[in-house]
Amino acid sequence: MSRSLVKSDSAAAEEMLSILRQSLKSCKTPGETNFEAKVPHIFVIFGASGDLAKKKIYPTVWWLYRDRLVPENTIFFGYARSDLRVEQVRAKCEPFMKVKEGEKERYEQFWKLNHYVKGSYDTRRDFELLNQAMTKAGTVRANRIFYLALPPSVFEVVTENLKSCCMATDSWTRVIIEKPFGKDSDSSAKLSNHLAGLFKEEEIYRIDHYLGKEMVQNLMSLRFGNRIFGPTWNRDNISSVFISFKEPFGTQGRGGYFDDFGIIRDVMQNHLLQILCLVAMEKPCSTAADDIRDEKVKVLKSMEAVGLEDVVLGQYVGDPDGEGEAKEGYLDDPTVPEGSTTPTYALAVTRINNERWDGVPFILRCGKALNERKAEVRIQYRDVPGDIFHGQTKRNELVIRVQPGEAIYCKVMTKTPGMSFGLEETELDLTYGSRYRGAKLPDAYERLILDVFCGSQMHFVRSDELAEAWRIFTPLLHQIEEQKPKPIPYIYGSRGPEEADKMLAENNFVYSGSYKWTKPAHHL
Amino acid sequence: MSRSLVKSDSAAAEEMLSILRQSLKSCKTPGETNFEAKVPHIFVIFGASGDLAKKKIYPTVWWLYRDRLVPENTIFFGYARSDLRVEQVRAKCEPFMKVKEGEKERYEQFWKLNHYVKGSYDTRRDFELLNQAMTKAGTVRANRIFYLALPPSVFEVVTENLKSCCMATDSWTRVIIEKPFGKDSDSSAKLSNHLAGLFKEEEIYRIDHYLGKEMVQNLMSLRFGNRIFGPTWNRDNISSVFISFKEPFGTQGRGGYFDDFGIIRDVMQNHLLQILCLVAMEKPCSTAADDIRDEKVKVLKSMEAVGLEDVVLGQYVGDPDGEGEAKEGYLDDPTVPEGSTTPTYALAVTRINNERWDGVPFILRCGKALNERKAEVRIQYRDVPGDIFHGQTKRNELVIRVQPGEAIYCKVMTKTPGMSFGLEETELDLTYGSRYRGAKLPDAYERLILDVFCGSQMHFVRSDELAEAWRIFTPLLHQIEEQKPKPIPYIYGSRGPEEADKMLAENNFVYSGSYKWTKPAHHL
Repeated sequence: MSRSLVKSDSAAAEEMLSILRQSLKSCKTPGETNFEAKVPHIFVIFGASGDLAKKKIYPTVWWLYRDRLVPENTIFFGYARSDLRVEQVRAKCEPFMKVKEGEKERYEQFWKLNHYVKGSYDTRRDFELLNQAMTKAGTVRANRIFYLALPPSVFEVVTENLKSCCMATDSWTRVIIEKPFGKDSDSSAKLSNHLAGLFKEEEIYRIDHYLGKEMVQNLMSLRFGNRIFGPTWNRDNISSVFISFKEPFGTQGRGGYFDDFGIIRDVMQNHLLQILCLVAMEKPCSTAADDIRDEKVKVLKSMEAVGLEDVVLGQYVGDPDGEGEAKEGYLDDPTVPEGSTTPTYALAVTRINNERWDGVPFILRCGKALNERKAEVRIQYRDVPGDIFHGQTKRNELVIRVQPGEAIYCKVMTKTPGMSFGLEETELDLTYGSRYRGAKLPDAYERLILDVFCGSQMHFVRSDELAEAWRIFTPLLHQIEEQKPKPIPYIYGSRGPEEADKMLAENNFVYSGSYKWTKPAHHL
Repeated sequence: MSRSLVKSDSAAAEEMLSILRQSLKSCKTPGETNFEAKVPHIFVIFGASGDLAKKKIYPTVWWLYRDRLVPENTIFFGYARSDLRVEQVRAKCEPFMKVKEGEKERYEQFWKLNHYVKGSYDTRRDFELLNQAMTKAGTVRANRIFYLALPPSVFEVVTENLKSCCMATDSWTRVIIEKPFGKDSDSSAKLSNHLAGLFKEEEIYRIDHYLGKEMVQNLMSLRFGNRIFGPTWNRDNISSVFISFKEPFGTQGRGGYFDDFGIIRDVMQNHLLQILCLVAMEKPCSTAADDIRDEKVKVLKSMEAVGLEDVVLGQYVGDPDGEGEAKEGYLDDPTVPEGSTTPTYALAVTRINNERWDGVPFILRCGKALNERKAEVRIQYRDVPGDIFHGQTKRNELVIRVQPGEAIYCKVMTKTPGMSFGLEETELDLTYGSRYRGAKLPDAYERLILDVFCGSQMHFVRSDELAEAWRIFTPLLHQIEEQKPKPIPYIYGSRGPEEADKMLAENNFVYSGSYKWTKPAHHL
């Protein structure tokens, strides 16, 4: 097998696309023989005039179309209240589409396949018109995907109208929805019940875009495809699991929206908890979506609810020596309510009360305005028992870097070139050898939208998962809202509150700080 | 800590030397406070006019002197029967010394510290003269190291004379000896008894130069310094261990010497068995030489003797399509006795009958005139139980490449970029990250000679180890000599006899052939 090292970037990219297309061909969806079947697809974006649509959804479907990853017989609809034409939607999206030289013709084709329907969200008649437009533009029989890029306020009425007027006939309908999926257990249950009254579970695709990330998806392959990791993946060998998400910027003037939710709802209760499930779950019976989701739910069911005593909460303050935004604290954001106690940083120690993980802290940490951008899982092993190297051995760590620069590496001890048994840390770097190193991997949204075309719910959140995730965090969220504990101030650009380091140290995580992974030099 | 990636080669080399010197400073030898003590050292090469001396030993001591790794108060003596002066010894060595620009002055100093004494090996008087010359050139009190680069025929008489006339007074004496250490259990026992009558075990340094190789020395650090490997290092998880040594050339007209020994004595009974011990042994109480050697002996004691039924023997024949030497088979070497049945290739399946390894084949393979130059340990894991990836998972392998290009890597399965759970093999490469990547590591002889200066016997073979190694192979060697089984012919430059692949397959080793490790591109 050839290696990327002897290949150009474009050849590597082409090879990867070809693998992707191949894997799509074999993707079966209910009621069809395969993905390449004759039934056309209609992809509908609700909220087509909004920010998410222009910045993320339109660009994503264009890239999928450009790379011939979606079926050629797919057409696209935008729907929103604004009185627009396709040309105007196109103009709004333009800055985000990244059209390269040589793609111009394909790009024109893409927009020719686009339609736009103006309508209100609460008028049934407008949905009937949308339905007519779809039938007219496509064929009577067509699979329909609805991407709901909408604020929670119109969510219920849109889904009702959609159900009444826009369902595919003799074909499938799939509905993609974005967070927030409620604010706590009760509100989330209400939403889930509403959806369950309209759609079957297999029609609902709840996006958690972290589940679309390459390294997150790789977790299962790594764990269950390798004999070498299995026997150590338990409380006997692992000291702690640290799942971390750090952002180097603050609210950037949009703190008003954030303040309603806080960092726990924004990152911890969804993204970090999803990753936790993939790290901790037992091996599923198969790679079928529901077998996997069954195991994830089992992990969540084994977790107790988190309380205020399990967390360190922080809120960033301006750095007087910083530049630009760094000078501003969270409370300096004019859109943030005065005196807000909403945390912008949270570290939570959670535990999984099952046979594999009893006693192993799973530490979740997320924060804004920190010293770096990083999302990673750090599985820290216990100390070597019966050390014969006079205390030189540092703990092994298996690190799955989700972003930036997707990587899997393992901190191991190796011999220094000295004459005695000197040890030093080095890493076993898995990603370096990847054949696709030169190629850009599809991003999270691209993968997830393709999954919807394929009917694969593996990387989407099922309603029982969601309910369990809220069960774990709702008591804490209510405590915060009721007691309004003052978050610990930390300086913009710092590592966060010192109290968090203390809690880490008390929970089986040793920060050695002696080794820092550096991305290998990249010369192709 | 900085990384080699941002360092020049020379800076990395200098850093490594500095670490080496530091580790030497702390090396304590019996009767002294440390290595830097005032007592001078005399390093004596017996057989100074021979091939090994000029090609290996003189160059090695020069490099050690050049790099200031041996104490500055060291002087060097050559001893042989030829009537030579230091200048003539220097002239013989010249082509092998690799003196670089800027080292000329140091090189002159080195030779000024050299002496040469002509003498016969069986005349006591000549040894007395050597002793006088040493005392005159050095001081009365000096540590003495004798390197015996001599044929077995003069070995006994030299060691007797050495003992009678040349032992250091008030300081230590150390004697380095090279293989062959006998030809079978009896002859080896005779030699060991002879040596034991003259020297204490701690004065005897039996060289097996494989024990001086970086990756072989790294085996212990890797195994016992890392929690992540320990739990899988056993019969429950490892399917087979394959220790392999391949040479791409034949006897090159020196088959006469080789024919007396054969590949099993030349490589398998010593180098490969030593590596086997390091892979298989239990964790020693400490890193003290005798604690380690105790554990190695325990491994050997748990092994049954190998018989003809456990091996595949081969002898290479010329490749009619080959070029130069490749056209010639072993029997075409004019120095090889006509009709010789001496194997030039051997694969042996050995087993360790202890709790950790019961049922795990340890397969030793060595051969000349094969398709590549390679020495490596390949630890193959069992299949993943309860596979959920539809047979895509290939076995994990931890590979320790001893030469060429020292490396440790681990074959693991990772996700392909496809939408389904496609898996592909990649490697976790440990060596890539080494801080010393740019620097030439000291070679095996350099390390081992330094070990002798330091009084560290960790990487030398103890007499009980040697006796056990012969016990395991003597029955097979005698069977071969008595029954003269015809070795299977294999073509020069091939992978060896097909029967060997069959025996591998029957002994829990799966050759997938689907993945080939390539040395990463190296741009500093």
